[in-house]
Amino acid sequence: MSRPVDTPDISSETMASYVERLGRCGEQVNGGLIRPQYGEAWVEAHHVLTELMTGAGLEVHKDAVGNIFGTVHGTDDQRVILTGSHIDTVYLGGKYDGALGVLAGIAALDTLQSQFGRPLKTMQVVGLCEEEASRFHGNFFGTRAILGLVKKAEMDELVDPDGVSLGQAMRTIGLDPARVAEARRNDIDAFLELHIEQGRGLEDANIDIGVVTTITSLAWLDYTVTGRADHAGTTALRHRQDAMVAAAEMALSVRRIAEEVGEPAVATTGRWTIRPNGANIVPAEVVFTVDLRHPDEAVLEQMKDDMAVQCEAIAEARHVRAAVRTVKQEPASPTNPDLQTVLADAADTCNATWRLMNSGAGHDSQLMARHLPTAMLFVPSRDGRSHSAAEHTTAEASAKGARVLAAAMRTLAY
Amino acid sequence: MSRPVDTPDISSETMASYVERLGRCGEQVNGGLIRPQYGEAWVEAHHVLTELMTGAGLEVHKDAVGNIFGTVHGTDDQRVILTGSHIDTVYLGGKYDGALGVLAGIAALDTLQSQFGRPLKTMQVVGLCEEEASRFHGNFFGTRAILGLVKKAEMDELVDPDGVSLGQAMRTIGLDPARVAEARRNDIDAFLELHIEQGRGLEDANIDIGVVTTITSLAWLDYTVTGRADHAGTTALRHRQDAMVAAAEMALSVRRIAEEVGEPAVATTGRWTIRPNGANIVPAEVVFTVDLRHPDEAVLEQMKDDMAVQCEAIAEARHVRAAVRTVKQEPASPTNPDLQTVLADAADTCNATWRLMNSGAGHDSQLMARHLPTAMLFVPSRDGRSHSAAEHTTAEASAKGARVLAAAMRTLAY
Repeated sequence: MSRPVDTPDISSETMASYVERLGRCGEQVNGGLIRPQYGEAWVEAHHVLTELMTGAGLEVHKDAVGNIFGTVHGTDDQRVILTGSHIDTVYLGGKYDGALGVLAGIAALDTLQSQFGRPLKTMQVVGLCEEEASRFHGNFFGTRAILGLVKKAEMDELVDPDGVSLGQAMRTIGLDPARVAEARRNDIDAFLELHIEQGRGLEDANIDIGVVTTITSLAWLDYTVTGRADHAGTTALRHRQDAMVAAAEMALSVRRIAEEVGEPAVATTGRWTIRPNGANIVPAEVVFTVDLRHPDEAVLEQMKDDMAVQCEAIAEARHVRAAVRTVKQEPASPTNPDLQTVLADAADTCNATWRLMNSGAGHDSQLMARHLPTAMLFVPSRDGRSHSAAEHTTAEASAKGARVLAAAMRTLAY
Repeated sequence: MSRPVDTPDISSETMASYVERLGRCGEQVNGGLIRPQYGEAWVEAHHVLTELMTGAGLEVHKDAVGNIFGTVHGTDDQRVILTGSHIDTVYLGGKYDGALGVLAGIAALDTLQSQFGRPLKTMQVVGLCEEEASRFHGNFFGTRAILGLVKKAEMDELVDPDGVSLGQAMRTIGLDPARVAEARRNDIDAFLELHIEQGRGLEDANIDIGVVTTITSLAWLDYTVTGRADHAGTTALRHRQDAMVAAAEMALSVRRIAEEVGEPAVATTGRWTIRPNGANIVPAEVVFTVDLRHPDEAVLEQMKDDMAVQCEAIAEARHVRAAVRTVKQEPASPTNPDLQTVLADAADTCNATWRLMNSGAGHDSQLMARHLPTAMLFVPSRDGRSHSAAEHTTAEASAKGARVLAAAMRTLAY
């Protein structure tokens, strides 16, 4: 099928070449990327993005926290239509998470300028400095800086695993932590983020584009189960207070509750600490995390309540004590309905199939959406893999996504 | 009730004082002992035992591996009736495990000599250098040396957590690893070991003495469950290969199988490794240990088979792979029936209630029993606690046990 001449033209080859170039920053010998905030590979990524943005005819600048921008100034209006995503990666992550949104933005602005000349409004693409908590436990740092949500205390309080504070890390690459507030922006009219889906929904349904309606609400819980250490050979089963047996039953119960609610509910018991963790000692204490997500906060709350009730019952039956603590809870972030329509229409214009969907993952857009008109589009992830070297989106799907993004930017900026 | 005058007389005060003196070696500020093989606290324990043995009129010597002996030579026969236990402790263990058997032996030999003069056969008490794998992963070292079962290669191959080899550790305290073979003995006619029960059987039944018929057979298994790491927010539950959910179900199944077999079967899932162990990542791999015990090896084998079948079914249903590996398997060790009778008669003589029972824990006696006539008596453990600062046996129960041991030694040596 030939594309109508007035749709943006971005080739698979361009996207493949972009992904490969940025994907070399932090790539490990055995696969997977390590590109934490303000690290060497991250600085290298800035160099690559500067080259790509310059090559695309964009004006390049960095803000006070190391967000990197490429700009096409509007003829009539300096208010900004912003697109982009983050450039940091999880430990041994892939080449697409975050990166593809930045690269698609560069390709989109390049093409729009070439094909349609200067826009009325200013268009900008951003490589956000951090989203993954890739180095410090304070994520969405780039987005928070833009929204004026960074607290001064974070500069000293956030410390990486090597003991380096966020402020020290900034100074190392020439940023001044005292100037973080300067990153705040008040000139953004809309934010559009292209991102890989990181699930199998689009691939399984053979659909090109997901238009995100809501970014999920999320709760992180810590379960602490306290039993008693005993000799594994001499303590009869009926006398035990085995924290791990109880915790195992709780983990299955958590899973079952999410299954009963049905998709898109998910619950994950991902991180475990077992004490004393000896082969011949009955476990005395187990701490495990529950990551719980559902786009409807009321459902999320109901799941939490059900889990607490079942957890208590299991603890009683197994003669252990259990405590559940909510470590963090994020409300659902609905995106802007008008911008959803812009994205859906753009997909139609580009002959891309699309559907509305929720995002089960957190994204920069979830914070942006609470402060600015924001929308988000997904492209398919092969086999749903993400946060892994196996992460992949075909060059064709990447290009199709970039064209839809460009078409939406055109609607908003021209 | 007054004791007949011809029974050995050992007071609660003696036992309490012995326990306190040896219990200071390696005692930690917040409770619990750390007394690993050949460490400082262990050397200190040698000093204390030398004092106690000398005070009891015993001839003291140490063998090539650091087993410490107190001897009363027989008038007619230099063949030996040996009693004792080990002097090392688990990390943050108690004052009774092992120690009480050595101390009861010293008290027994002291009393017998005082009350009944020199024996016909030689009597000896031993503080075995190691039983708990308290420093090196090669337990029963003291007993194995006496039985000639130590391999030369162990001197270099066994390495403590600080990288010190067994041979180096021996040299540090003046032992020559080249002379280990000299510890071998061929002059022992019988071995009697007094030990705390480490379970609640005696306490619950209000019985003084357990006469051990069999030391349990034991299998240590490693379960490796391999699933797939996925994003905790974007991967639908039905698409997951969650290694931890599967492992949790397997752990419950292991427990259920042991419960269905009934006491004294026990199964413990004590040590766990979860990868990547991140709160927002579906667990990709879980390795956990199963410690499985039953005095009847045929039952143990049946449990292993049942577990393998259920594990396979769970793996299939949960879309993961599972592998079960037997890391170690110890056969059951029946003790000597004639010596069981000697112990039971000795208990009657001392007006101590007794019953036959299995040992769910491994002991030096299990190896001794395969090479020498061996028997073992248990004294009650408060609340069944062991391998913990909470480990306790009353001074009265300790003294009663020591008197029964002495009466049995008298039967064998006089």
